[in-house]
Amino acid sequence: MSCKVVLAQGISASYREELKNTIKSRNIRPKLVGFLANEDPAAAKYAEWTAKTCAETGVEFELRTCARNDLEDKIIEANQDAGVHGIMVYYPVFGDRQDQYLQNVVDVSKDVEGLHHKYVYNMYHNIRFLDEAKTKKCIIPCTPLGLVKVMEYVGVYNGILPHGNRLHGRVVTIINRSEIVGRPLAALLANDGARVYSVDINGIQEFHRGVGLQLKKHEVTETTLKVEDVLPLSDVVITGVPSPSYKVPSNLIRDGAVCINFSTFKNFDGEEIKKKAAIYVPAVGKVTVAMLERNLVRLYDYQNQDRAASA
Amino acid sequence: MSCKVVLAQGISASYREELKNTIKSRNIRPKLVGFLANEDPAAAKYAEWTAKTCAETGVEFELRTCARNDLEDKIIEANQDAGVHGIMVYYPVFGDRQDQYLQNVVDVSKDVEGLHHKYVYNMYHNIRFLDEAKTKKCIIPCTPLGLVKVMEYVGVYNGILPHGNRLHGRVVTIINRSEIVGRPLAALLANDGARVYSVDINGIQEFHRGVGLQLKKHEVTETTLKVEDVLPLSDVVITGVPSPSYKVPSNLIRDGAVCINFSTFKNFDGEEIKKKAAIYVPAVGKVTVAMLERNLVRLYDYQNQDRAASA
Repeated sequence: MSCKVVLAQGISASYREELKNTIKSRNIRPKLVGFLANEDPAAAKYAEWTAKTCAETGVEFELRTCARNDLEDKIIEANQDAGVHGIMVYYPVFGDRQDQYLQNVVDVSKDVEGLHHKYVYNMYHNIRFLDEAKTKKCIIPCTPLGLVKVMEYVGVYNGILPHGNRLHGRVVTIINRSEIVGRPLAALLANDGARVYSVDINGIQEFHRGVGLQLKKHEVTETTLKVEDVLPLSDVVITGVPSPSYKVPSNLIRDGAVCINFSTFKNFDGEEIKKKAAIYVPAVGKVTVAMLERNLVRLYDYQNQDRAASA
Repeated sequence: MSCKVVLAQGISASYREELKNTIKSRNIRPKLVGFLANEDPAAAKYAEWTAKTCAETGVEFELRTCARNDLEDKIIEANQDAGVHGIMVYYPVFGDRQDQYLQNVVDVSKDVEGLHHKYVYNMYHNIRFLDEAKTKKCIIPCTPLGLVKVMEYVGVYNGILPHGNRLHGRVVTIINRSEIVGRPLAALLANDGARVYSVDINGIQEFHRGVGLQLKKHEVTETTLKVEDVLPLSDVVITGVPSPSYKVPSNLIRDGAVCINFSTFKNFDGEEIKKKAAIYVPAVGKVTVAMLERNLVRLYDYQNQDRAASA
């Protein structure tokens, strides 16, 4: 067994250090408000991590709890409060399409999670800047962005290739096609050159950008492939199945694969996967929080630029 | 048995007549593009109705079929085509949150269905105009709007009361809390003064605006009530359960109730319900299409106003 287990703590360290230095040297105090309107222990745990990381890096974090039916009004209040620079919500709240409605209620200028339609649309269309002058980079949904950073850290991105093509030749399977993580991640990786098999209970879609089409957006095609077909082909297997009983069949994983789990449940059997994988990342939460803070600092700057421009 | 069965054909007649006269007398030719990207027979039937009604009223209707993975690009193409005044999509396409993403891809200025976040948000917040000068009325999601028109037609709205309060005193149960129909409908009716019980598989919420709060938005409270509790209290029962096996328990319906079904399946047992209800509306599809066309003419005018203003 020569599997290297890589922990989110280590992956996120350089980002946290950078954030800490930026905030300290610029002497700024960006404020993030998190809304907790459910009783999901995973959400509460994520909120704890957020608070802890923010305290370390110098971000002011305020957790606001409320009944789910009051959440919309509370978000609007925070939208209008110039003292709040970033807003995040611990989902699921209603657990259905009403959550997606709420994602669009968060003002686009304060959306640290990058879940507003504008950001999601830009990401799918590989539009990387908010303005024509290209001074403001788009916010990227933070869990997919965190997963990209994990993949950079463990060497899946090839730094020798040009930006936007650093996954050329990689085959990635993603088991999860949610609108919050799985589908945007598939698009991001395909936009960077990978061939991606996106798996959900209804079947497998292939996301790819085509040969030589650098910086154009990816295409999606339906396939009749099964998990048994795509896992043995995959250099990288990323899972996010929200169930304690689901386990990826380790026997189908290719020798030397990179295996990354972003579910709060352990989708890989820890002992079995170490016999097959070259690299195993059992969780990514801390990287996600670092990306959240990174987005916050970016939005803080945009808000100040806008205020200066309109003054 | 003295139940009056009211058909959508009759309810929609005056709207269709008005549309026809408006379009003819103004000598305009608004164009609606419908996208069919599924193989749902109910969607195909709805498309047929749309085509037929449009032909009668003088609207140019073009049905475009495509693979679901090409739909986003096709919508964007229609967004950019000045010859297209309205766009609609026959849902479900992906049957999940990706559909809600697509609803926000349709340009707000061409969204005849009123499903874009801006319209849905304005409806929930009882914001009735798009501009400060109050020259442009908001588009209201067309199935909920159609249901309001059905309720006006069958006398549930009380014309003696002032606008915005014409459902004062009415108790309405809605069995469906989708983001497309059930939840917006509950909000609309509560904003007009009704007490609404919104039923879905997870429980019952009460939507109400409170006494004397005319034109302010409704509030939502969770209840521990069951269908057995709310049906006997309800003057109006509206159903939209997408299942051929679901039937509302007729024995719980109050004598003389108004019963309206907007599901493509018959949620009421036709014979049983006639023994209890005063008014029974078995389907509303034709009213929905009329509202779609009404929204189209409105958007056609807004587009011309905007063009004139920027010329």
